[in-house]
Amino acid sequence: MSFRTPYLMFLGDAADELAAKTAIGVRDWRPEWCIGQMRLDGCNADLGLPDMNVSEAVEKGCGTMIVGVANRGGIISETWADAIVEGIESGMDIASGLHQKLASNPKIREAAEKHGRTLTDVRHPTRDFPVASGVKRKGKRLLTIGTDVSVGKMYTSLAIWREMEKRGMKTTFAATGQTGIFIAGDGVSVDAVVADFISGASEWLSPDADEDHWHVVEGQGSLYHTSYAGVTLGLIHGSQPDALVICHDAVRKTARGLGDKGLPSFEEVIEAGMWAAKNVNPNVEVVGVSINTKSLDDAAAEALMKATEDRLGLPTVDAVRTGVVPIVDKLQ
Amino acid sequence: MSFRTPYLMFLGDAADELAAKTAIGVRDWRPEWCIGQMRLDGCNADLGLPDMNVSEAVEKGCGTMIVGVANRGGIISETWADAIVEGIESGMDIASGLHQKLASNPKIREAAEKHGRTLTDVRHPTRDFPVASGVKRKGKRLLTIGTDVSVGKMYTSLAIWREMEKRGMKTTFAATGQTGIFIAGDGVSVDAVVADFISGASEWLSPDADEDHWHVVEGQGSLYHTSYAGVTLGLIHGSQPDALVICHDAVRKTARGLGDKGLPSFEEVIEAGMWAAKNVNPNVEVVGVSINTKSLDDAAAEALMKATEDRLGLPTVDAVRTGVVPIVDKLQ
Repeated sequence: MSFRTPYLMFLGDAADELAAKTAIGVRDWRPEWCIGQMRLDGCNADLGLPDMNVSEAVEKGCGTMIVGVANRGGIISETWADAIVEGIESGMDIASGLHQKLASNPKIREAAEKHGRTLTDVRHPTRDFPVASGVKRKGKRLLTIGTDVSVGKMYTSLAIWREMEKRGMKTTFAATGQTGIFIAGDGVSVDAVVADFISGASEWLSPDADEDHWHVVEGQGSLYHTSYAGVTLGLIHGSQPDALVICHDAVRKTARGLGDKGLPSFEEVIEAGMWAAKNVNPNVEVVGVSINTKSLDDAAAEALMKATEDRLGLPTVDAVRTGVVPIVDKLQ
Repeated sequence: MSFRTPYLMFLGDAADELAAKTAIGVRDWRPEWCIGQMRLDGCNADLGLPDMNVSEAVEKGCGTMIVGVANRGGIISETWADAIVEGIESGMDIASGLHQKLASNPKIREAAEKHGRTLTDVRHPTRDFPVASGVKRKGKRLLTIGTDVSVGKMYTSLAIWREMEKRGMKTTFAATGQTGIFIAGDGVSVDAVVADFISGASEWLSPDADEDHWHVVEGQGSLYHTSYAGVTLGLIHGSQPDALVICHDAVRKTARGLGDKGLPSFEEVIEAGMWAAKNVNPNVEVVGVSINTKSLDDAAAEALMKATEDRLGLPTVDAVRTGVVPIVDKLQ
């Protein structure tokens, strides 16, 4: 998996900004790859990119149309299919974050075959993985883990990777979900691999590297989230992290999608994460905390970060609000 | 998934007893369903069942041919396909524990379509599962967990289920691997579901039941085995166990398939298992230990069980050698 850049961001008839969450993530972290957006009638999302049609995008050198939008009902509608086929006929590859595979639509499949274009479904594994070997790999790895799902693990990982790049450190972002894959241009949706191969896919994601190279691995799920914890544990074992960063949402009180189930404390998440990671790397350390404070005002955000730092004795940041300098300082 | 009994056990040209391990498990626990074995030239395994061909098996009322044998290379050979097709043409359904799907062989697929027979690949999920809800279910559940993979979790679970049945307790064996599925006649290979649905599949396996009903859930993997621990954690979360039984192989010193990686202690396995299970059921208890002592003589086996019982304060058995009476006593 790896995509020809730049991207045309296809938003279809996205009902709202949330439906375009994936596209927004790509725009935020790879603005230089996003030459424009293509919106159909009824689209209520706006990435702030130039609106363009297929031929305008091709003229600007677009290599891949990114279907970075959630569609209600999970079906590729006829209007979407027509736009995607037009892209294929004009020479674009197509990459999609939809659950439904692009090739399951006969029009799209036939057009791609006829024109020799690539269809990539980033939610579905595009290769087989071996069972994890557990063999220790060279180089350093950082992994984000969370008090819950959807608390900012991807943004935190990306911010750390960018800060390392800025400092000239050797680093790679290892993407484990659809948005991250569009941003990295490569990766594996680890929650979509067959259960036996979670760790194997995770090992593959951060192969041997120079001793001073950092793979920054995007975390998934949470060891305490009873729907997805298996993915999290397999990802920790396969990643062999040297450094863990704990992510949290300042206003989250209950586990997402699990009714009134409460969240674990920072201390519990640290203890469980260290237990899991020590099984593959006895030298692992927790190197910081990243709290998504976007629902708080400046004073409340600062107070929460300060209190957390005092309580845990760990650099505490908001990856978006404050950046991640203190965490990368600790690693460099 | 559920099979028409009785079974004809197809052993193909199994190179040795180990290649017929699945068939041996079925013969041990469902002798009343196994009317015979079918062996081809070169077969070196013997279940001790009457040898018969397809027509003899049909005459005795065989409903399903069980392909309970590992084949080198993972390919359904031509001689196997011919025998399987003959079974289909004679009215049998086919159930296979092979990695390769039965229907991937055109002869087998066409015969099944033509004759309206069922092909079941128990290593592959035959339905979709929801994401786990975490909602507490009625009834009681026992789950086996291990110090490593392949230490006797299935045999221990089956022995507990049988002992409960013998006492007239309400009980169901919930199978999570291929051999168990042939024995139960139903189940899910949890290591073969997509990672996001490990817990969801595990919830589905032991649905709501009477308050005094026990689902005895076959464990998989180990929380400390870094290739498969994700499956184990998802299975624990989805099973919501009330009771855990710790399984161990008396002579295992290193984790299977992981080089010289050592095993966790009983205490570590208990602590990790209780941590995982308490997240879904605060009342969970460890109710016993089952050690596979088949490599030890009577005196050494007895000494090991006694020492373990004294050390942990838990009833300690060998499910095969001593039976599981003390564990079921504790539950009844």
